[in-house]
Amino acid sequence: MRERTVSEAVIHRLPKYYRHLQELQERGVERISSGELSAEMGFNASQIRQDFNCFGGFGQQGYGYRVNSLLHELSQILGLTHVYNIVIVGAGNIGKALARYAAFPQEGYEVKGIFDIREEVIGREINGITVQNVADLPEFLQQNQIDIGVICTPKDNAQKTADVLTQGGVRALWNFAPIDVEAEKACIENVHLSDSLYVLSYRLTNS
Amino acid sequence: MRERTVSEAVIHRLPKYYRHLQELQERGVERISSGELSAEMGFNASQIRQDFNCFGGFGQQGYGYRVNSLLHELSQILGLTHVYNIVIVGAGNIGKALARYAAFPQEGYEVKGIFDIREEVIGREINGITVQNVADLPEFLQQNQIDIGVICTPKDNAQKTADVLTQGGVRALWNFAPIDVEAEKACIENVHLSDSLYVLSYRLTNS
Repeated sequence: MRERTVSEAVIHRLPKYYRHLQELQERGVERISSGELSAEMGFNASQIRQDFNCFGGFGQQGYGYRVNSLLHELSQILGLTHVYNIVIVGAGNIGKALARYAAFPQEGYEVKGIFDIREEVIGREINGITVQNVADLPEFLQQNQIDIGVICTPKDNAQKTADVLTQGGVRALWNFAPIDVEAEKACIENVHLSDSLYVLSYRLTNS
Repeated sequence: MRERTVSEAVIHRLPKYYRHLQELQERGVERISSGELSAEMGFNASQIRQDFNCFGGFGQQGYGYRVNSLLHELSQILGLTHVYNIVIVGAGNIGKALARYAAFPQEGYEVKGIFDIREEVIGREINGITVQNVADLPEFLQQNQIDIGVICTPKDNAQKTADVLTQGGVRALWNFAPIDVEAEKACIENVHLSDSLYVLSYRLTNS
């Protein structure tokens, strides 16, 4: 039942809490109040308490939150205690950068395959993994249980790639192509790097 | 006065409107109602009307919005009619990917310099630009008017890089290091790629 009561806004704040608590842990902080978290993160304290209440509320009045246990709970809620298998489709600039992303293994993500459509790229090695022909992706998906498909293709191939991935049983799509993809049976995060760049342009122009 | 009345939430929706209207324009759509935009974008129609009202409201009741003129207004509001000079600090995977990002020139961003601290990287060419020693960044900033500093360093060098950039007069920071940077005199967008990956983990675990 839990997931039904958690709003999108809360879900998108969870990674921010997680990151911030990791930093606190690194700094050796053992406990923190919602007021202190609020001052550091810029969310208001009652929102923080409400957010944590969605998940059973781990704090104690007058004591605050234990950083370690909160981090432990959050990593379970976020599913970071599993290992997820990933394929990357599109070995261009961003695909290559992600394939080499050092934080993947330590955070429980394992790149199982990299695919591309271009003959000159197929067969090359990236971070120890040989780039395969995207035509072989459906068969690969039959033989390997893949959790997350990373779409790094050009715009025009993005939706088709999403279709192939979901038809092959992939339940989560992380899309870096500059167009939103859709899928009925998968959860999707469309990443638009330029959005934050546009926000900077806005501020430069309007300040 | 305009910028004072526009909330952060509106500012962060502007790039999404802009992208969506670009797609409509490519599809040859000439006008659209807030109701249709709402159905396509998943924001509610009255929010869309309110957002556009912040900027003077370009629609006409019973007619809707002209895609071309709305796009034109939005590109002016977002400051996309200017050319912005960029430097990239950190020529690792993500720095290189951004240096080669084909959309930059066509969207009005010009990469003026790439800097790194590592001897084996300094002097290499990325997309026609020679990587310079980061020790030379302060002087480079004195001699070139740079609008946006892109931080692609490891975590431990991110804040120091932010300081050097802002001391050199850079007014906007686009930070890809996995730690939030701070600056008094600059606007900052901290990009956390893994946040959206954590959201996918969450959904995979809780669905």
